[in-house]
Amino acid sequence: MAKSHDDLRRDAVAVARGLVVGEGTAALTVRRVAEAIGCSVGTIYNIFADLDDLIVHVAATVLDEMHDALFAAPLPDEPVAALRDLAQRYLAFAVAHPRLWTMLFEYTTASERPMPDWHLERIARLVADVQAHAAAALDGSGADVKASVDVLWASVHGITALALRGKLGIVTAESAGALADRLVVTFLAGARAERDPGPAGRVARPAGRGPGSAAGAGR
Amino acid sequence: MAKSHDDLRRDAVAVARGLVVGEGTAALTVRRVAEAIGCSVGTIYNIFADLDDLIVHVAATVLDEMHDALFAAPLPDEPVAALRDLAQRYLAFAVAHPRLWTMLFEYTTASERPMPDWHLERIARLVADVQAHAAAALDGSGADVKASVDVLWASVHGITALALRGKLGIVTAESAGALADRLVVTFLAGARAERDPGPAGRVARPAGRGPGSAAGAGR
Repeated sequence: MAKSHDDLRRDAVAVARGLVVGEGTAALTVRRVAEAIGCSVGTIYNIFADLDDLIVHVAATVLDEMHDALFAAPLPDEPVAALRDLAQRYLAFAVAHPRLWTMLFEYTTASERPMPDWHLERIARLVADVQAHAAAALDGSGADVKASVDVLWASVHGITALALRGKLGIVTAESAGALADRLVVTFLAGARAERDPGPAGRVARPAGRGPGSAAGAGR
Repeated sequence: MAKSHDDLRRDAVAVARGLVVGEGTAALTVRRVAEAIGCSVGTIYNIFADLDDLIVHVAATVLDEMHDALFAAPLPDEPVAALRDLAQRYLAFAVAHPRLWTMLFEYTTASERPMPDWHLERIARLVADVQAHAAAALDGSGADVKASVDVLWASVHGITALALRGKLGIVTAESAGALADRLVVTFLAGARAERDPGPAGRVARPAGRGPGSAAGAGR
């Protein structure tokens, strides 16, 4: 009995994922996927628009697994501890799945198609769940939660990227956990100090300087 | 009159840089460089050990330019303002030279050779100059300056990387400047709050939890 389209799609995504895990995204071709599941190249192109479409389907499984890695195990009740754990779980997921993580963030699609809604919804769910924990850790300071999550996530992402690549000898896989933890703890302390300035908080914002005031780098 | 090795080397690096700027690192081949400067492929291999060696020479010029972009123009005397400016200058340099910046951080060398000393010295100079400003901004808190610079730089790097790629729709080139500024200001406020805890600093470190305590992501 011929495989259904759903079965073929599932098999193709699994094979594609295996190729990325084993050899990296550059090794992934429609031909190799077709050969591995015993169908024609044309059949793959009946199921997926192109290689980018297949890669987005693999990326969706990575996002699902990242969500599990972040949230499946219970987090501490204490919000700052929960956010610190989330940063370490994100880093650990990247270290455990370096090629899948690299595919997710560094692969540039050839097509100009926007990401499909089911993919964007996975991203939105991840962001919303992290924001919920960040809102608690920021102690209900309100309006800045989204920007703070953006900063924290992009920063942990940067530490992770440098750790995986070992670039410039500054961040290693060994030191990344401690750096990410220092980032989260210090940033949260700073956010609280800004909201509720003590002797430390008051000196942090020089008078007359706002975000982006130095954006003209070549002055 | 035949070009000297020094002239050929300088020309080859300039052509290679132009190929990276125009088309990205993947477009850079020894053959194209040889054709552009009118010599044989063998001549290029007399001057450079391999393509990686040529790329490291291009990378050295990028590090020199990055140092200029960060430090050539006067920085504010006030140390926090200086560090905020440095973050914006780093981001602006990456936005102005996305393919050179990507080459520097995302190119993986095929050879196992360590980076040459003259390359490592450029990196060390950049790090030392940033650390000098960070030490002042951290108000002489001493032992943590190196780790704080590592965190801040890796974090700004992460914001920059996501801005250049426009990944996940979270960081854009427009928002990156504000996010990087928030990161620096909030992190410095947090570092000061930890050193000199007021009502805000005291709540930042939950008892019994140290860096890396949550590194086992799969618990």
